[in-house]
Amino acid sequence: MTPNDAIRLFAKTLQNMEHWMDKAAAYAQAKSFEVDVLVQDRLAPDAYAFNRQVQSACDQAKYAAAYLGGKPAPSHPDTEKTFAELRQRIRTCLAFLESVQAKDFAGAEDRKVSPPWLGGKWLRGDDYLVHVAIPNFFFHATMAYAILRHNGVELGKMDYIGSLPAKD
Amino acid sequence: MTPNDAIRLFAKTLQNMEHWMDKAAAYAQAKSFEVDVLVQDRLAPDAYAFNRQVQSACDQAKYAAAYLGGKPAPSHPDTEKTFAELRQRIRTCLAFLESVQAKDFAGAEDRKVSPPWLGGKWLRGDDYLVHVAIPNFFFHATMAYAILRHNGVELGKMDYIGSLPAKD
Repeated sequence: MTPNDAIRLFAKTLQNMEHWMDKAAAYAQAKSFEVDVLVQDRLAPDAYAFNRQVQSACDQAKYAAAYLGGKPAPSHPDTEKTFAELRQRIRTCLAFLESVQAKDFAGAEDRKVSPPWLGGKWLRGDDYLVHVAIPNFFFHATMAYAILRHNGVELGKMDYIGSLPAKD
Repeated sequence: MTPNDAIRLFAKTLQNMEHWMDKAAAYAQAKSFEVDVLVQDRLAPDAYAFNRQVQSACDQAKYAAAYLGGKPAPSHPDTEKTFAELRQRIRTCLAFLESVQAKDFAGAEDRKVSPPWLGGKWLRGDDYLVHVAIPNFFFHATMAYAILRHNGVELGKMDYIGSLPAKD
């Protein structure tokens, strides 16, 4: 699994996330509630709300693409308060992921990755992907899914996974 | 990120999961409730309960190690109804993961992986890891974490991530 494969997996999952939001919108319409009430829902009082889970999933993907692809990470301020704005955030993130191409990840495994929260320490690119980007990305994506699921949105595992490149 | 790296990441996360269960047990003791009531808790009436999330995380790790390592997957029946039994399930899984060594994954990317649920179709080993094993493993691990978190267990992101191989 190359760094490029990981970034394409993140992109696929963000696209799946938009599909979960479609299902949430249909559910809100069927139940006659405003879908944007879900934006501030959370699983525990001190846990991130839905919007912050989506923002964090986007950021994990963005920073992984930037750090491993040797590109500056664009700033995407966390201002989204509606489903429409969160969809736009996902699309903005996807456009950045798309801009980092397979060739940009050459040598990514050995890059020194030193995000501010490591306080001057660093991780090998490969370690950043394994120990930070992958678990964190799927943590926030799954939490976003869990908040919708907990509220009754009809989601199943294949909505989470999306299409598979299975062969006959 | 090699298949071996992915299996070690799953093992690390299962060890972290035991640590979440330690925190749940301490919380149960402090609140004077029986920790095993959490075993059947779930985020939605038709979602997997905590025990099934743990079992599924273990199975995703087990099958990935078996399919990619070219080993038969041992049978681990889903009989656990207590925290003590779930800890044992995790340890049984970890012992199997440990038994599949780095050299067993040689050529794993190109293996044909044909789990029964694909109904005769197959995935390249690398595609199985990217599209099935990684997202599914972290889905179930995060759902297990989310159930504990939703019940008030004091868990934070670093409990989920565990230690990082950061360098000075």
